[in-house]
Amino acid sequence: MSKQILILPGDGIGPEIMAEAVKVLELANDKYQLDFALSYDELGGAAIDKYGVPLADETLERARAADAILLGAVGGPKWDTIDPAIRPERGLLKIRSQLGLFGNLRPALLYPQLADASSLKPEIVAGLDILIVRELTGGIYFGQPRESRVLENGERMAYDTLPYSESEIRRIAKVGFDMARVRGKKLCSVDKANVLASSQLWRAVIEEVAKDYPDVELSHMYVDNAAMQLVRAPKQFDVIVTDNMFGDILSDEASMLTGSIGMLPSASLDSNNKGMFEPCHGSAPDIAGKGIANPLATILSVSMMLRYSFGQSAAADAIEQAVSNVLDQGLRTGDIHSVGMTKVGTREMGDAVVAAL
Amino acid sequence: MSKQILILPGDGIGPEIMAEAVKVLELANDKYQLDFALSYDELGGAAIDKYGVPLADETLERARAADAILLGAVGGPKWDTIDPAIRPERGLLKIRSQLGLFGNLRPALLYPQLADASSLKPEIVAGLDILIVRELTGGIYFGQPRESRVLENGERMAYDTLPYSESEIRRIAKVGFDMARVRGKKLCSVDKANVLASSQLWRAVIEEVAKDYPDVELSHMYVDNAAMQLVRAPKQFDVIVTDNMFGDILSDEASMLTGSIGMLPSASLDSNNKGMFEPCHGSAPDIAGKGIANPLATILSVSMMLRYSFGQSAAADAIEQAVSNVLDQGLRTGDIHSVGMTKVGTREMGDAVVAAL
Ligand SMILES: CC(C)[C@H](C(=O)O)[C@@H](O)C(=O)O
Ligand SMILES: CC(C)[C@H](C(=O)O)[C@@H](O)C(=O)O
Repeated sequence: MSKQILILPGDGIGPEIMAEAVKVLELANDKYQLDFALSYDELGGAAIDKYGVPLADETLERARAADAILLGAVGGPKWDTIDPAIRPERGLLKIRSQLGLFGNLRPALLYPQLADASSLKPEIVAGLDILIVRELTGGIYFGQPRESRVLENGERMAYDTLPYSESEIRRIAKVGFDMARVRGKKLCSVDKANVLASSQLWRAVIEEVAKDYPDVELSHMYVDNAAMQLVRAPKQFDVIVTDNMFGDILSDEASMLTGSIGMLPSASLDSNNKGMFEPCHGSAPDIAGKGIANPLATILSVSMMLRYSFGQSAAADAIEQAVSNVLDQGLRTGDIHSVGMTKVGTREMGDAVVAAL
Repeated sequence: MSKQILILPGDGIGPEIMAEAVKVLELANDKYQLDFALSYDELGGAAIDKYGVPLADETLERARAADAILLGAVGGPKWDTIDPAIRPERGLLKIRSQLGLFGNLRPALLYPQLADASSLKPEIVAGLDILIVRELTGGIYFGQPRESRVLENGERMAYDTLPYSESEIRRIAKVGFDMARVRGKKLCSVDKANVLASSQLWRAVIEEVAKDYPDVELSHMYVDNAAMQLVRAPKQFDVIVTDNMFGDILSDEASMLTGSIGMLPSASLDSNNKGMFEPCHGSAPDIAGKGIANPLATILSVSMMLRYSFGQSAAADAIEQAVSNVLDQGLRTGDIHSVGMTKVGTREMGDAVVAAL
């Protein structure tokens, strides 16, 4: 039976970049006889417009039934003033949570061809290749209780809860150690164990899991120090494993070290490696519809999908190689353009990757 | 009556750098007839060794009675294996909380003389001058309940609580706006209002306070984006106001942009501008006792104390000028040393500032 791929183009530049990624996916499908069947639905603002909610029940069912999901990007000013409970981001949080996509892989990789784009000195970032493993379905993002209320003295107050259970920490720790094992064999666990109770448990469980990975060198770092070290000497890191909120902050910081967030894909996996794959960047409403967005992060998300959900490393490698080739050819979308390079639009970039593949 | 200054040298390099700061303080005391009376006590590891706890009741009483507190740094490997409840950091958190030092000012200032020390490209950081205003006595650092326990299924779990009340947000917002008003008139409030209930209240209250500051340009930014923007284009910021945890992370990231964290002071103020002043850097146990630590951040903390707690801006300016002069003379401790400069030790650096003053 065919493998079902659900495509969620989303908002802003989502549909444009997804169109290019789908071209690449269809070519890979033919070339490597992957037997993929593609279907489409909406998430985020587009889903609010169509269904009245950012993730419709029928979409969630389709996502459950699919073997993998490819997502563009969600959100935009059109839905900024909407009831917070049904904002576009809520759809994203709900699909992560409902599908149990706890393992978020966010690579921060500097392409040698784009070394100049970084705001850091070349010697600090040359060869940068970090993988952030972020816990994605627990912690303060979903913790209950959370509430906004009025105190007896008439003042408003609001609170959130940051909970972690041993099993939640153990399963993300394993993802971190497994990734480190096939990469540079170094794992840095980031927490705030000098202040938070949840971080103390985090650290203890990471230590326990470490016993099964004697070949991986484990270190612990406080989140404030990690935010500093990423700026000071990012190449000290191989794999970083951390909680949902710290991972949100540090993965964005790390991706910006490369200067080309338009190049970075991500994967969100469940315990069977079923996953949702999406670019790290947002929906960029300011350039939506102009045909100038960079489709490479979405194309590389296809590669991650082939690698992690379907074990098709040959096809995944080929896509990555094709992307590297178009960079070697000097093709650049506006976000990664520099003097002497050829500026191209979204479609030309997608076509170039297809040609290179 | 004399103004009482409580000196807490702390651990690691604390006593060494404090000795130099005290020389500068005593000279300023004479020169500007400040009528300061200095007394000494212990905080952190040194307090554990002396009193058995990281902040003794009698020390807390002395701190309450003082007009200002000057702190070196706390913590070190000697106390790493101690019961978490009485670790050195607990003393720091307790004194902040007990004295109501909610307003934490953390400048990230690039000294032109040290521009090369940054890991960022010169054009990205030249002239950098950001002030981070961090809420220091609320949020997840102190929120109750917090607990570690065993679930019915035998699993361990732990959680923390992130609460903010309207009045807590309002008073730190005012600090942020007041600072912006006397600086570049731009305030960026950082939160995670697309996910957290506490951040939604945070944003609402900031908006309310903004009405009293029509001359200050207010913006809001999500914390993940802020962590990115600090790397991409830090000079877009003037003053950043944010909660305790986000402020911990972002202020460390921002300070590292300068490449010379050994230069950065900080202030923690209560609602009457009584405060505790300390360098941004830690206790650096690896170089403690060697006489090579950089005393300038502690000396600049004296300047912040004169400015914010005692309104002595002439004396404060003079100290800052003296520090700038010794940098112009080419004097550098190891942490900020570069080719062609004169490497000096802690004491020589302190003496040079005294001479310049
Ligand atoms: C849109 C937002 C809720 C989301 C998050 O915070 O997880 C985004 O920042 C991300 O990192 O995917
Ligand atoms: C030592 C630690 C508890 C403290 C904090 O997290 O506030 C430190 O990192 C700081 O920023 O002053």
